[in-house]
Amino acid sequence: MDLPSNILQQAVDQLATLPGVGKRSALRYALHLLRLDEAKYADFLSALSTLKTDVHLCRRCHCVSDTELCPICSSPKRQHGIICVVENIQDVLAIENTQQYRGVYHVLGGVISPIDGIGIRDINIGTLLSRIQYPEVEPIQEVILALPTTMEGDTTAFYINKQLQPFGVKVSAIARGISVGDSLEYADELTLARSIMHRVPFESN
Amino acid sequence: MDLPSNILQQAVDQLATLPGVGKRSALRYALHLLRLDEAKYADFLSALSTLKTDVHLCRRCHCVSDTELCPICSSPKRQHGIICVVENIQDVLAIENTQQYRGVYHVLGGVISPIDGIGIRDINIGTLLSRIQYPEVEPIQEVILALPTTMEGDTTAFYINKQLQPFGVKVSAIARGISVGDSLEYADELTLARSIMHRVPFESN
Repeated sequence: MDLPSNILQQAVDQLATLPGVGKRSALRYALHLLRLDEAKYADFLSALSTLKTDVHLCRRCHCVSDTELCPICSSPKRQHGIICVVENIQDVLAIENTQQYRGVYHVLGGVISPIDGIGIRDINIGTLLSRIQYPEVEPIQEVILALPTTMEGDTTAFYINKQLQPFGVKVSAIARGISVGDSLEYADELTLARSIMHRVPFESN
Repeated sequence: MDLPSNILQQAVDQLATLPGVGKRSALRYALHLLRLDEAKYADFLSALSTLKTDVHLCRRCHCVSDTELCPICSSPKRQHGIICVVENIQDVLAIENTQQYRGVYHVLGGVISPIDGIGIRDINIGTLLSRIQYPEVEPIQEVILALPTTMEGDTTAFYINKQLQPFGVKVSAIARGISVGDSLEYADELTLARSIMHRVPFESN
């Protein structure tokens, strides 16, 4: 596709760098932006430019935040004795959406993946350990590992579990099993097996 | 979804105004932008900000352009006696991609649609007529209507055809028929009927 405007072409090329956006969608976005009135376009641009300058990562849990400490870490209503360890910020939002978890989080920012060149030092494991080392700041009793069930996720969980052993904190992992509403017939064998292995008392189900 | 950062939330809200982008995709885009390094982010923002200030619409055909007259209108290699009338800029790009058309274009910027409040004066019909009124600038011999086959597209084509009658230019419409490679069996009746009605000599097929 050869656009009759180089400037439009550059904007399309940039928009096409967004994850999952192809040239055709990028063109649609660019033409939509072109049609916006000045005020709306200014709003759009300013929201994107403050994004980079004003959004911080929480210095404790590494989730996005407008302040040094994110609303979750600074809330007195949360249980600061339980940390849920997740791969990324989307995972925090997914768990928050359930409205069932009242503890705090720790965002690793990735999982150990030697193929992608991501080692132990490239993700936030060190800061997780130091959170547990200083119980006067946060009296951590339990660490919940909510990492993906991929080789990389399992490796990361295994490593973190090993590192946590000396501190005597309880380490748990989120339950895997058949999704609520799914029929057993179509579940994959691994999931079904785990579902049976980790069965729970009927009353608490 | 309640983000722990208002600034991120604003960026997500703005990105979700792009056509076909939901909150979830917008969040993915925003987090991707957050992860970009400074230089790449600056490129992204500058491409979007110059978009609005530097892209013009060609004063003759209303297609996007970096200059007052677009590369197609100003090209001596194009046939300036044939105008293809299309609804929007994407249509120009689609026809250009075929590399079969050597004439020029006229972008209406919409079709007549009383339900959406789009009347004759809201689209570029007036400028089309004035292009034909001044043969010393462009010696127009033929106008090809390449408008959508919707009620609105047909109404617009009908109106333009009527307006063009006094000028004695040839008015044609792009052929409708079975797509190349499609089987007759699955074609809709209207298309198949048009395909037979507007059959062409075998040699020119």
